[in-house]
Amino acid sequence: MTQPPTQDSPGEFDIIRDIFAPLSEGQAGAFNLTDDAATLSAPPGTELVMTKDAMVSGVHFLAGDDPAQIARKLLRVNLSDLAAMGATPMGYLLATFWSHGTDPDWIRSFAEGLKQDQREFSIGLLGGDTVSTPGPLSLSLTAIGNVPNHKALRRNGAQPGDLLVVSGSIGDGALGLKALRGELEFLTPDDLSFLGDRYHLPQPRLALGAALRDLASSCIDISDGLVADIAHICDASSMAAVFDVENVPLSVAAAKVVVKDAEFLTAILTGGDDYELAFTIPEKFESRLPDLSKQTQTDLTCIGRMEAGSGVRARKGGAEMVLPTAGWRHF
Amino acid sequence: MTQPPTQDSPGEFDIIRDIFAPLSEGQAGAFNLTDDAATLSAPPGTELVMTKDAMVSGVHFLAGDDPAQIARKLLRVNLSDLAAMGATPMGYLLATFWSHGTDPDWIRSFAEGLKQDQREFSIGLLGGDTVSTPGPLSLSLTAIGNVPNHKALRRNGAQPGDLLVVSGSIGDGALGLKALRGELEFLTPDDLSFLGDRYHLPQPRLALGAALRDLASSCIDISDGLVADIAHICDASSMAAVFDVENVPLSVAAAKVVVKDAEFLTAILTGGDDYELAFTIPEKFESRLPDLSKQTQTDLTCIGRMEAGSGVRARKGGAEMVLPTAGWRHF
Repeated sequence: MTQPPTQDSPGEFDIIRDIFAPLSEGQAGAFNLTDDAATLSAPPGTELVMTKDAMVSGVHFLAGDDPAQIARKLLRVNLSDLAAMGATPMGYLLATFWSHGTDPDWIRSFAEGLKQDQREFSIGLLGGDTVSTPGPLSLSLTAIGNVPNHKALRRNGAQPGDLLVVSGSIGDGALGLKALRGELEFLTPDDLSFLGDRYHLPQPRLALGAALRDLASSCIDISDGLVADIAHICDASSMAAVFDVENVPLSVAAAKVVVKDAEFLTAILTGGDDYELAFTIPEKFESRLPDLSKQTQTDLTCIGRMEAGSGVRARKGGAEMVLPTAGWRHF
Repeated sequence: MTQPPTQDSPGEFDIIRDIFAPLSEGQAGAFNLTDDAATLSAPPGTELVMTKDAMVSGVHFLAGDDPAQIARKLLRVNLSDLAAMGATPMGYLLATFWSHGTDPDWIRSFAEGLKQDQREFSIGLLGGDTVSTPGPLSLSLTAIGNVPNHKALRRNGAQPGDLLVVSGSIGDGALGLKALRGELEFLTPDDLSFLGDRYHLPQPRLALGAALRDLASSCIDISDGLVADIAHICDASSMAAVFDVENVPLSVAAAKVVVKDAEFLTAILTGGDDYELAFTIPEKFESRLPDLSKQTQTDLTCIGRMEAGSGVRARKGGAEMVLPTAGWRHF
């Protein structure tokens, strides 16, 4: 079912041809977005890895946010899923639900953001769909990557005694959202800006994910929150995890927030939107972590250990910390 | 960014585990929807084909429509894109944007529709995302198939003298929408029901698409409307098309509508939502059409021919018919 054209907005075909088709350059199988579907081959010896994440204006971003930043975050949260599987990204498909009256300049800025990150991650647009909606602007992206056959990282391989490791610093995403909402005004402008950037522009840990293919027994990206995502590993592996809150790596800005008020620790541990990797490795690989960190230019911190049992226990000062429901829900 | 749970609706994880994970049975690489992404391998000698279509409540379907039917149409319009490329479907990813307060029973019926068509088309759910929206229920589906290497049907290969052929009957989709809106009350209940079904439940021409891999010089599925979609072939092939309106195959119901009022011919030729295939074949293959029709159990009708030049000309009684803008726009 289709709608009659509106006089004051460019048509679907114009938007695809003028704004999105150039994003498919270099993707031979995208056919310049002129066909019904795209073709893609996995390199020999690899299988494809695919993931799909959706975002809604007013829920996952604000209408006033920078369109380029929204585009880049949408792409990066999907690339983070590929990183968690140890995959190398190849391309993506994009469905856009434009609100009536969406400014074509907004769409152009959005596409500019995609273009910038396409260069950064060496990927291109494969295809997609453009529809209009009476509701808020909504986006759905399917990212495609590849991984050597049978080498995809999973959540279900953790063993008792495995070390629990996280990349980067934890909690910046949740604190970044608070910073953007004006809830952390005691911080310096630099700290606020750092946290805001961490919220808006995740760094998918693709090099780390790829390097973990032969090391990690399980892996996940931290999108729902550190505790919830470790719980996903525990559930999938039928295993328990215990970690020391003191070990959780904090950025300088996040550390200041905790010093100001220890209550923020809950947000740091459960808040989500970090897009770091949490993974488990057999203890015998512990000595390889420093080289892995150097090779992937990613801080790595062992925060705990896997045990027989179920569930996640966070210890603080040796005592178990009581945390609210593991991870908020999207629905 | 996440939202606190609401007490009266099931959470994202519950919906995924209880309603959607069972749809991934048999898709080993979907990992029962427990991981960050899915893996998929194209069979040896094939490449993957992927497409993505989006639908919005109130735009592409009505809030009161049968949820199972909505699910099946969403799946089928994507499978129709795969058919147009000559691809064999393998699986799909699904992003759902549920309106606040969406009844879990609605979601279950929706999933039942998917299940029914999964069986019909031998495919399974690979992964996806579930988010909530303050706007209308919205859906985005990415369908994945495969085609022998370098055998994907394209829009750009039509040559002068090639025959222009369509499958099935044309215009039932557009008339079906009119029937559902009560605009064709002069028809019998059986005719109305036939047209309504044609609108709600497209038949992706997968067997035909696959059989055309070594015959067709170009192919497209008719979603924007017969004239607009032939124009897409013309644009991509730098070619003109001419066809005789008298040759366009009509269903019994559609023929009655035209007899009642010839003005409906415009809707039939430009209205979209048919999900038949339009394709071109070298004239030397004309004699193979009857066998192809029998083998794929699909009516095939030669309606015209490709010529040097550009654009689509529809002739009626030998004279050129003036049609409104080729294809309505979605935006």
